[in-house]
Order: sequence, then structure tokens, then C-alpha cells
Amino acid sequence: MDAHQIVGKPTPKLDAWEKVTGVAQYAGDISLPGMLFGKILRSPHPHARIQNIDVSRAQRLPGVKAIITGKDTPQVKYGVYRYCSDQLGLCIDRVRYIGDEVAAVAAIDEEIAEEALELIRVEYEPLPAVFDPQEAMKEGAPRIHDYAERNLVASPVVNFGDVEKGFASADHIRHDRFETAGQAHCALQPFSVVARFDASGKLEIWSPNQSPFVKRRVLSNTLKIPVSHVRLLKSHVGGAFGGRSEMMSLDFCAALLSKKTGKPVEIDYSREEEFTTTRQRHPMMIDIKTGVKKDGAILAKEITLIADTGAYASTGPMVVLNSPFIGLLAACRVPNFKYQGFCVYTNKPVCGAMRGHGVPQMRFAVGSQMDMIAGDLGIDPVEMRLKNAVEPGEILPYKSRLTSCGLKECIEQASEALGWSQRKGKLPKGRGLGIGLGSCITGFNLGPRTTSTALIRMEEDGEVTLLTGSVDNGQGNETMLAQIAAQELGLEPSEIRVISADTELTPQDQGAFSMATTFVTGSAVKRAATDLREQLIKIASEALEADSADMEIREKGIFIKGTPGREISFADAYQLSLKRDIPLIGKGSFTPKIDNLYSKGKHEGQLGAAFTFGAVSVEVEVDQKTGKVKVIDLAAAYDVGYAINPMAVEGGIEGSVSMGLGLALQEEPVYERGQMLNADFTNYAFPLAIDMPPIKPIIVETLDEGGPYGAKEASGQPIVSAVPEAIANAIYDAVGIRITSLPITPEKILKALEEKE
Amino acid sequence: MDAHQIVGKPTPKLDAWEKVTGVAQYAGDISLPGMLFGKILRSPHPHARIQNIDVSRAQRLPGVKAIITGKDTPQVKYGVYRYCSDQLGLCIDRVRYIGDEVAAVAAIDEEIAEEALELIRVEYEPLPAVFDPQEAMKEGAPRIHDYAERNLVASPVVNFGDVEKGFASADHIRHDRFETAGQAHCALQPFSVVARFDASGKLEIWSPNQSPFVKRRVLSNTLKIPVSHVRLLKSHVGGAFGGRSEMMSLDFCAALLSKKTGKPVEIDYSREEEFTTTRQRHPMMIDIKTGVKKDGAILAKEITLIADTGAYASTGPMVVLNSPFIGLLAACRVPNFKYQGFCVYTNKPVCGAMRGHGVPQMRFAVGSQMDMIAGDLGIDPVEMRLKNAVEPGEILPYKSRLTSCGLKECIEQASEALGWSQRKGKLPKGRGLGIGLGSCITGFNLGPRTTSTALIRMEEDGEVTLLTGSVDNGQGNETMLAQIAAQELGLEPSEIRVISADTELTPQDQGAFSMATTFVTGSAVKRAATDLREQLIKIASEALEADSADMEIREKGIFIKGTPGREISFADAYQLSLKRDIPLIGKGSFTPKIDNLYSKGKHEGQLGAAFTFGAVSVEVEVDQKTGKVKVIDLAAAYDVGYAINPMAVEGGIEGSVSMGLGLALQEEPVYERGQMLNADFTNYAFPLAIDMPPIKPIIVETLDEGGPYGAKEASGQPIVSAVPEAIANAIYDAVGIRITSLPITPEKILKALEEKE
Repeated sequence: MDAHQIVGKPTPKLDAWEKVTGVAQYAGDISLPGMLFGKILRSPHPHARIQNIDVSRAQRLPGVKAIITGKDTPQVKYGVYRYCSDQLGLCIDRVRYIGDEVAAVAAIDEEIAEEALELIRVEYEPLPAVFDPQEAMKEGAPRIHDYAERNLVASPVVNFGDVEKGFASADHIRHDRFETAGQAHCALQPFSVVARFDASGKLEIWSPNQSPFVKRRVLSNTLKIPVSHVRLLKSHVGGAFGGRSEMMSLDFCAALLSKKTGKPVEIDYSREEEFTTTRQRHPMMIDIKTGVKKDGAILAKEITLIADTGAYASTGPMVVLNSPFIGLLAACRVPNFKYQGFCVYTNKPVCGAMRGHGVPQMRFAVGSQMDMIAGDLGIDPVEMRLKNAVEPGEILPYKSRLTSCGLKECIEQASEALGWSQRKGKLPKGRGLGIGLGSCITGFNLGPRTTSTALIRMEEDGEVTLLTGSVDNGQGNETMLAQIAAQELGLEPSEIRVISADTELTPQDQGAFSMATTFVTGSAVKRAATDLREQLIKIASEALEADSADMEIREKGIFIKGTPGREISFADAYQLSLKRDIPLIGKGSFTPKIDNLYSKGKHEGQLGAAFTFGAVSVEVEVDQKTGKVKVIDLAAAYDVGYAINPMAVEGGIEGSVSMGLGLALQEEPVYERGQMLNADFTNYAFPLAIDMPPIKPIIVETLDEGGPYGAKEASGQPIVSAVPEAIANAIYDAVGIRITSLPITPEKILKALEEKE
Repeated sequence: MDAHQIVGKPTPKLDAWEKVTGVAQYAGDISLPGMLFGKILRSPHPHARIQNIDVSRAQRLPGVKAIITGKDTPQVKYGVYRYCSDQLGLCIDRVRYIGDEVAAVAAIDEEIAEEALELIRVEYEPLPAVFDPQEAMKEGAPRIHDYAERNLVASPVVNFGDVEKGFASADHIRHDRFETAGQAHCALQPFSVVARFDASGKLEIWSPNQSPFVKRRVLSNTLKIPVSHVRLLKSHVGGAFGGRSEMMSLDFCAALLSKKTGKPVEIDYSREEEFTTTRQRHPMMIDIKTGVKKDGAILAKEITLIADTGAYASTGPMVVLNSPFIGLLAACRVPNFKYQGFCVYTNKPVCGAMRGHGVPQMRFAVGSQMDMIAGDLGIDPVEMRLKNAVEPGEILPYKSRLTSCGLKECIEQASEALGWSQRKGKLPKGRGLGIGLGSCITGFNLGPRTTSTALIRMEEDGEVTLLTGSVDNGQGNETMLAQIAAQELGLEPSEIRVISADTELTPQDQGAFSMATTFVTGSAVKRAATDLREQLIKIASEALEADSADMEIREKGIFIKGTPGREISFADAYQLSLKRDIPLIGKGSFTPKIDNLYSKGKHEGQLGAAFTFGAVSVEVEVDQKTGKVKVIDLAAAYDVGYAINPMAVEGGIEGSVSMGLGLALQEEPVYERGQMLNADFTNYAFPLAIDMPPIKPIIVETLDEGGPYGAKEASGQPIVSAVPEAIANAIYDAVGIRITSLPITPEKILKALEEKE
């Protein structure tokens, strides 16, 4: 039984009421006096040189207050990695995809701004464009960025063990190719920003973002203003999933337009802009050669992966390492491994971080092939996965230690939840069971800013205020952090006021991305709370003349253990602290002990401070007339280390299933010469409530040594990653066809069924 | 020469640009979505019983969203002192002055709210009223508050030494009576509030206020919500002068109306409401009997003082002790002293804290009489003041030690600035010289909340953020605190971002009243900066393997003294701190060591941690035909201990002269049966720019042992207090008439000139 009073208990979100009543303020709700509205002019060409921009007619339109082009900007490129910092807030002489930013207008209303865009005359010289990553890699293909030969952003080669020897001793070898489509975030809140330069030259900016401190630095660099003069303020975030980590052009343009006009400026992206100009999931092509022993033990794998990153690099170099390192090696023991990844530019919208971040594609590929091999050898897929599964304490090939690992428990519990051992192979025709796996880490190395700091201040009525730079993207981070503070201080979560996500008011934080909040920020909050608790105990032990070792904290007071009636309330401790000039403010910092495996060439070390695992089992029914797949039942087991808020973890599992099902069965951005054809909610089909199967969420707890109370992360990523693999395998189990490309549409199924007959 | 680089230098206000460009946001500038506008219904009777309130017609007016009366409130009385907490946010069954709050309305605009007030039917039973404090003190006078016999709020009796013996050995005894009128604050920003209850039941409130933490507590008590659930947020304050220390009815009503409607509510006071329903200076009647030796040395004083506090007590009990303790005894040695004060209720608007807070009235009285005695004895007024002046180290009769005292320097420098020794007695007819004195303390005892705490956080670019709960009322507190942080950390003030006055974000602070900011908050900031500096030096000394005693901080870096080239920049130290999980956040708290001399009966101890002093000399010209007084020249010397920002101190002196001249020569709220007749800027005449004389500000520095860099306080109060005394004496010097009541209007002068002839 869990001895904790507060953490580990299902806890409704502290801001739920605010959200359901519509009071919660998102960036688009912010209205400032004298505010102007901005719009961005975008390239209609997939690749072109800008020869001239004439804004004079637009300038004269009444109500237009400012127009900026790339030449009006500091022209500093930005990006996730220094070596491939390739994007500008506004393009200067070249555009690289349909939607690339060319100019921005601020006007007294949106209609006038829109009209002004039409009055801007841009002369383009179209350049040859390339849309297919394999074409883009060829010698002689149009080069999209001058520095990148063969349009390669990154082409890491990784070797562990001796694959030749591995294959030589294999009983069975398969070579298969898999493809995955892109995927759009479809966060319900489109990007929106309000920027205001104050009279002293300080920039205030409200926008949905996962890491205020990271975004502050990018804004500082690209706008050339000191980092302390940029302030990101909290507004609620309507979904992030990795897509709110980077600066977007609207942030940059709103800031510059505000600077130029001296007024606040709001820019709201349309849904179409959201689809085509923010970040998507990387489409991939994955070739896998696998050698196994008769009993199913994997001996060697050789993988070539091509990821299409679109017109700019974004997190591309990270994705092509996450795919093998997390998607494969963190779930499956591979003694001999050879990998060649290619992250390739094309003249298409940009791909970047999205829940799973390179892992779901690889899981679909290696997990589909694993079932194919299991079929070849007559081994049960669950059996096969258990045989090759990594274990607690294991050192992965790239020298990361698994401080905890519940992968086997996840496999067992997810499969048994659907009655795998009894039902597998015994379902009626058209029905099938499948299983998929997923892994994740908590905390990437982001350089020295991988640190979170928290402050907790005692109030005069004995409640506390927690100041954290972290963000709640909607997943419940603030509630989870309040639980930690409450647990350590003997309070209820409702007695903690959480102030978050303001670079000027709240201390340094890594941000709510790279799965860091529970592990990193949570640890900082725990340390800050412990610090405050020790201060409280010190004050009380002096006042009561008792040994501090004999003191305990509960019910808003400091008690002498076993001596009822002698206690100091928090409120009284506060008064004592004032008299003694000891501010009752706890502080705590935490940096995960991790290495940077993403720098060029060096691919060994501790990738994440801890690893999480998941398994999803599904039962599907395939309609052989229509090709439609219905998910009948689904169980998702997730090793989060420890569930600080089980209610939030279960919610995250459910959301991840939805995203995984979209990826598996229906979502696909469709392009024609770089133009996305289905950039709206009518034509881009993601799962709706009616598409959702019943879900059995299973929380597996392994109590990791590093995180708060043993918690690791609860981003849901192992679940998203496991779903397409599970679905593909279940479809095979149901109707005997193997679809090797995502999404698995009815058309593909009907075609495969036809071919099979 | 001052060795400091930053403090002690004239420093323009950091927010000056924001203010002169109109960007600075005051409470009335805040506009929230869905905001309603409130108005308050006020009593037309000076004293009446409320028999019935019928809001039904007002309720039906379209656009009216809520109406509250006293019965809809928690009915908790509030006040500065517990024993005389006598005021309600809204009256229940009785009104006590014309303007007392009876009901409040929230509507979609101000006009509808105004119209709704007219539709509320209140049945009153008028009660006998009393307007003159002497009448009010008589047996049988109408009793305004049930608890207060003879309408006395406080009637302190103080005895030091033996007055009978003192008078018996005196060579000369005088007995005179003086009277002073009230004075309105006339802050250019009228009271204004925006209150919003959020969905979780937390109150956010923007209003001009001098102490967010004190106001938070009063709102919490009167609204019956936990103190942590009340958040006061910063807005700029357009003048305070003591008048923004207490909760006003609009704060209370806006909060309740917001709670009732679920919408933000704004209430703005009209200038008339500002005059009649906020706080004014106490009118006083002061009887003084003084015994002196032939050489001018004071032997004994017996004083009776009656202060009219209006319908509610407010700070009345404090004022009737400040008058003798600060106004007299902190400037003048009185070996034998007997005092009887009376603070009396009348059915008039409420008097409370106002710059000087009881001292200017007493200075006018005792300083006028001092010149009369000097005249009787043929002693020069400057001589007479120097002879009786208190000195550094002196223990005052009420056992307060003067840790520093520049009173004599002030007297000498102010008088010599106008050429007193050469010119006194030699001016042409109709011209005269006069001198007046003033004293002040820093820090009253306000119970355990007399503590200020500050936090200073290092930013990644080496600039810092200062978090302080203190307020900048317009006097430049934020700039002064930034100077202190900058001084300690080797930065420029512009490299400090000051976050202030937000009870949720900034730590506990006493507030910008009771002259506390420089001494108390300034000390806390200095301690926090020192704490951060020590952390920086520790990090650098470890990194450079150098002894921390050899390190120094300057130019955003930590250096080894005398070893150029080996240093760590603040930005690098920040990165090091992240790696080591040491948050670079300095914290500091400060509580002045003072006693509570205001509690009933106990009148001994350290009244303020330090005392300040001032002297004002004036040259006037009296037009004997019109009675008009023109101030030809004025010198004001002020012992502030140390001027952290001489520019702000000089500005404060100039503003104080203006307020002092208004009190001396022209300002007076005029009443007819409790109705103020001149409650507007046309009929209430305060000094305009054209009325201002040339001013010679003189800063006297005495480097107090307790304050930051030796600074004490710079509220300007000794200067306000000294002006009426100086003016009255100069008029006597010019035309030989002694006016014993303030203001010294042309009418009084003409009448006295007539009588003299």
C-alpha cells in the first residue's frame, strides 16, 4: 500500500473549473488597449528566389500601421541545433516551401491586414523544387540549403557489435521495408500570440509555448535584444505535444510589429496556417534486415532510415537518432546493430517534435517485422517480445543504464487484459489480436539549461505559493507539482497556489517538453518543499525547544512526534519567521544526470535519466467488404515509474491512444507539388469521439531511483508509439494481410485482400 | 567623497519613460473582458438610522447585474486598531456622515449604475448629529459609536518629568491656543479599483494602495475568504501620501459585486467622492503652556490637543501620539512634559494618515509659540531652536534613542541658505524671514508584519530580477531599490528588473507607508543582494580555485582582486550554478527593532528605528492691502541619513513644500452641517505651479547606523511639517501679526492687520 497521502491519489486538475467555465485565458483571449492585428504573407512557391517586394500600395491602405519584410529584421537564423540553424523569422531572398514567411502586416483589424497582404507585390524567380526525400538525396537534386550537400541535415551512422557476425550465425533472416506518413498535431488551440514592447524596450509576449525559458532565448537572439528584456507570460495552452517547443514566425513578427508601431500586436494562425506552417511528424522510410535464432532471439539488425524533415531542419537530427535508440534499442535487445539514418530536406512544410518523436514510425516498422518473423518461426508475438525485451539494470548498446524497467510487466498485463493467452488464434474470421510496444525517456540533454528550479513561499495563513517556470500544456502539470508540494508540506493540493510559466516571475525551468516536468521540475519542487519543511521544523524546534529530529509536519502544523498538544501552526511559524528575519521561502534545483548523444559523432552515454515503457494490445474487426477497421477493444499498459496523479496518467493514455489510432489508420497530410491538399478539419481526418474504442488503461509502477517518489514521465509517448504496431499486427491476425505503410487505410486493405486472393 | 558607484548618484526613475508616454497602467486603465461598472449609494444624512432599503426598482432596470447592501455582506468591521475597528464596507443599520456607504450597484455601464442608484429607496430616521469635536466631547452629545463614551476614540495622557516643578523654576511662561484646518490629499489619481473573482474563488484586485500585504489581510477579514485567496496585483499609483494605506469601500464593494456577478467589476471614485469619502488630515486644536529660562531653554510644557477624526477612527489614535512624540519631542528638548490628547468622533468625513500624520499641526503650534517666546525674550528664533534642539545619541523622554540626528545642521543650513544671520531684521517693511522645523521616524510598529523580504534572481545574461512586495507610489521606490541591488552586485540600475507589489508573486513586505521603504525594504534588498553576491563569489572561487576573500564583484563578473584576466562572468556563473543545482537566488529579510508605543497605556520605547529631521526657512512678502502672502524664497534642509537617490529626495522636498504651503496658506475643507462645500478642484484651492516659490533643497547626511548605506527615510514629512511654522513666523516677521490658525488666509491677515492698527 502506498504510504503517501497526496501523491498517488487521483486528483482532478486544479484549473479544471476555470477551463470548463470558459474563464481560462488563452493567448487569443488577451485583449490589450490599442492592440493591432497582424497577418503574415506567405510564399505561393515551393522554392523560389525573392527578387523584389513592393509594399507601397499596402502601406497606403488606411488602417495599416506597419509592414515588415525580412530586410527589416536582424536576419538572425535560428534552429534547434546550431549547425543546422536554418530558419528566419521572415525570409530574405529565398522561400523554401509553400507557406514560407515573406512579410507581415499590422493593422487596426484583421480584415484590413488581410487586404493589405493582397496589396503587397512580391516578384519571385521560381527555382526547381524537390518533394521526395529519396530524390532530394540524389546528386544533382535542387539544393534547398547551401550548406547541406545532397540536402542532408544529418546522416548518422551507428555501429554496435558486429552485424556481419550476427547475420552469419542467424537461423533466419528477413529484409523488409516500411513507410509512414506524416501527421499533423491538430492541437485544438491554433497558434496565437500577443506581443507588446513597453516604453523601456522590454518585450512582453503571450503565446502557447512549452518552454518559456527556451523560447525567451530564441526571441532574444533573433530580435537582438538582451534575454532579460524578453518576458514570456503565462496563458493557458490548448495542447502542445511537442509542437509548441520552437519559436514560430508569428511570435517573431508580432514582436517586431509591436516594436515598430509601439502598440500591442496580436496574430492568430488560421487552421490552414496551423496545418501547413507549424510542425508535423516526420514521414519515414525504414529498411530493416533482421537475423534471429530459431527460438526468436534477435542476433543482428541493419537498418536504413530516411526521414523527410521538409524545408527546415527543426528537430530532424534528433528524430533520426530517437528512432533507433528509443524506438528499437530501448525496447528490444539487439546485440549487433548497424544503422544509417538520413534526415533530408524537401520543399515541403517543416517536420519537428511530435509526441513519440521518431519512435512510433520505428515501432511500426520493427514491430511489424517482429510479428512477421514470429510468424515465420511459429512463435507467439507476445512470447517473441518477452524473449527480446530489455530488463531492469540492463545497459543498452549505447551505454545507457535502465535504472528501472517495467517493459515485461507492460507486455504481460496489456496482453492478458484482452485474454491473449486464451483467445489468440481462436477469434472468428475477420477478428484479430495484435500487440505493440513503446519506450520513452525522461529528459534529453539540452545543454546547461536542462535544469529546473522551484521556489515555495509560506503565506501568512499557512498555505503556500509555488513558483515554477514550467508549463501546463493541458496535461495537468500544475496539479501534479502542487501534489508534490502538498505531499512534502502536509497540505492539500488546493492549499498550494501555483504560479507558472513567466520568465520574469518564476525561476529557470527546462520546460514542459522532452518529458521533463515530472522528473526534472517535480524533483526541483520536491527539493524546494523539503527546504521549506526543514526551515519550518527548525523554527518550531527552536520555539518548542525540541529536537528537530523529533518533529513532524502535518495538518498545517509542526508537531513533536508522540507529544500531542505541543505544536506550532504554519501561520504561527510564519509570524516567528518574520520576527527572526528568516524568509520562509524554500528553493530547490534539479538537473538530470544525462549525456548529449545528439552531438555529431558521439553516440554513447546516458540518453535519458530514466526510461519508460508501454505495451498496447488491441482487438480489431476488419470489414472485408469495405476494408474498414474497427477497434473492438484496447488495453494500454504504461510503466510511468510511479503515478503521482493516476487520473492524469489515465487521461494521457486515452489521448495517446487517440493519436496513435489516427497515425495507424487514417491521418495523412496529402501533397501535390508541395501544396497540402487537406489542410482543414473536414479533409484531414483524425479520430473523433465516436471512433474511440473502449480503453483499459493499466498503470505499471517500477519506482525509479531518480524521480520524485519513483516517478519517471507520463507523456503517453510509449502508448502513441505502440498503437500503429499493435493495429498492423492485429489486422494481420484478423485477415492475414500485412500492410507495411501508414496509415492503414481501407483502400490499402481492400487492395491487399484482392492481391491475397 | 562617496565611494559608492550607484547609490548616492542622481538617478532618473526607471519608470519615467513609461509614465511620460502614457503607457503606465493605473487601476482605472485596466479593462477586462465582460467587465461591469459599479457605483456606490451614499448617505445624504450626517447621522441617521437606516430603516429600510428597497432595491427592487433598481434591480429591474435593464443592464443592472447586481445590487448589494450591508445585509449581503459578511458584516465584519475593520479599522487600523482592533479596539476601534468601527467601519463596515457597507453600512447596515446606521450612517454616520454624509457620504457613508449604503449600497452598491454593478451594471453594464456607469450611466446605468448611476441611474440604478437613483432608483434605490432608502428610508432613514435622522439622528441628532454633532460636527464640532468640543461639542462632541460634552456629556449628552449624540453618541456616534456605541462603545465610545463622549465620542472619544482615544484620550492618551503622557507625563515625563515634573511639569509643576518645571513651571515653578521658569523665568517666563506663555499659554497659547492654536487651531489647524483639515487638508485633502488631492492625489491626482482618484481611487479606482478592478476586482475579479476567478472560478476557483480567488479574488484578484487592482487598486492604488500603499501596502498590498496589509490590504490583503483586511480584504480577507472583511470578505471572509482565506488570506491566500486574495491577490493584490500591481498597478501604478498616482500619489498616496498615506491616503492609500487602508481599504476603501470601493475595494470591498467591487470584490463583492464581482463575486455576485462572476464578472470583473470596476469602480472609479469621482473627485467629489475622493474629497468626501476617503481620508483627510485631522483638524486640531492645541493648547500649550510653556515655561522657559531667560536664555530660552525650555523647562516645561503642558499641552492639550483635540483632534477631529470624523465619523470613523482610522489612524486617529496614532495621530494624537505622533503630534507630541514626533512633532514636539523629536525636535525639541522638553525635560518636563504633560500631555492630554483627545481623538474625537464627529459626523464628518473621516480623517486618517496624511504626509506628516499629526506632526505639521503640532509644529505649527509649538513653533509659532517658540517664536512668540523668542520675541518675548529678545532671542533670535534660529538661536532659540538650536538651543533646544535634540542631538545625536540623545535619549528622548519616551526612551527612544536618536541613532543619528542632523537637526542642528538642518537649522543652520536652511537659515544660512537665505542669509539669515546677515538679513534677519534688516528686510524692508512687508518682508520677513521665518523658520520652521520637522521630524519624522522610519518604521512604526505594525505588529509582526513590520518585516520586509526581498528576492533577487540572477538571469542567464547576467542581469538580475528583484522581487519585492513593496510599492512605488510615484516617489521612485523601485528605482531606489534597484540602485541598492545594483550597488551590491556591480550592475547598473537599468540591469535590474523590479517586480513589485503583487501579493502572490512578490514576497512579504511592510508596504510603502510608515516611511518604511528605504529603511526596511531597502535593508531587505541589500541583504538579498549580499546573499546573491556571496553565492556568486562561492561559485567563482570554487571554479577559479581562489580564496573567496580575494574575490570582488564588478562589471557583471566575479574577479580575483589584483589578478586581471582570471574572472567568471555572471552569465558563466549562471551556467555553473545550473550544473550544480544551486539556484542563484538571493533572499533577505529585515525587521526594524522598534517598540509599539501606540498600544493603550504604554508610551515608552523605541518609536522608530531612526529619526529624520528637517528645517525650512522662508522669505515672504505680505501685501498689506490684499492680505496676500507671496513666498519669495525658500530653503529646505532634510536629514535623510544618506540620499540613495538625491534626485528623488530633492523631488520629494519640492512636493512637500507644495503640500506644506497649501496647508499653511490656502487649503481648507469647508463644511455646513457635515456637508463639504468645496469638494472639487475649482473651490478647493491647493497650490499650483505658479504659486510655487524658488526652492533650495539641501540634503543633510548623517549616515545612520541602521539603514542601508546610512539612509533613513525620504518621505518629505519633516519638510511638510516645517512649512506652516516657517510661514507663520515669517509673516510675523514681515508685518508683526501672529495668526494662530491654519490656513493663514488673506482674510485672517487683513483682519489681524486691522486689529493691530
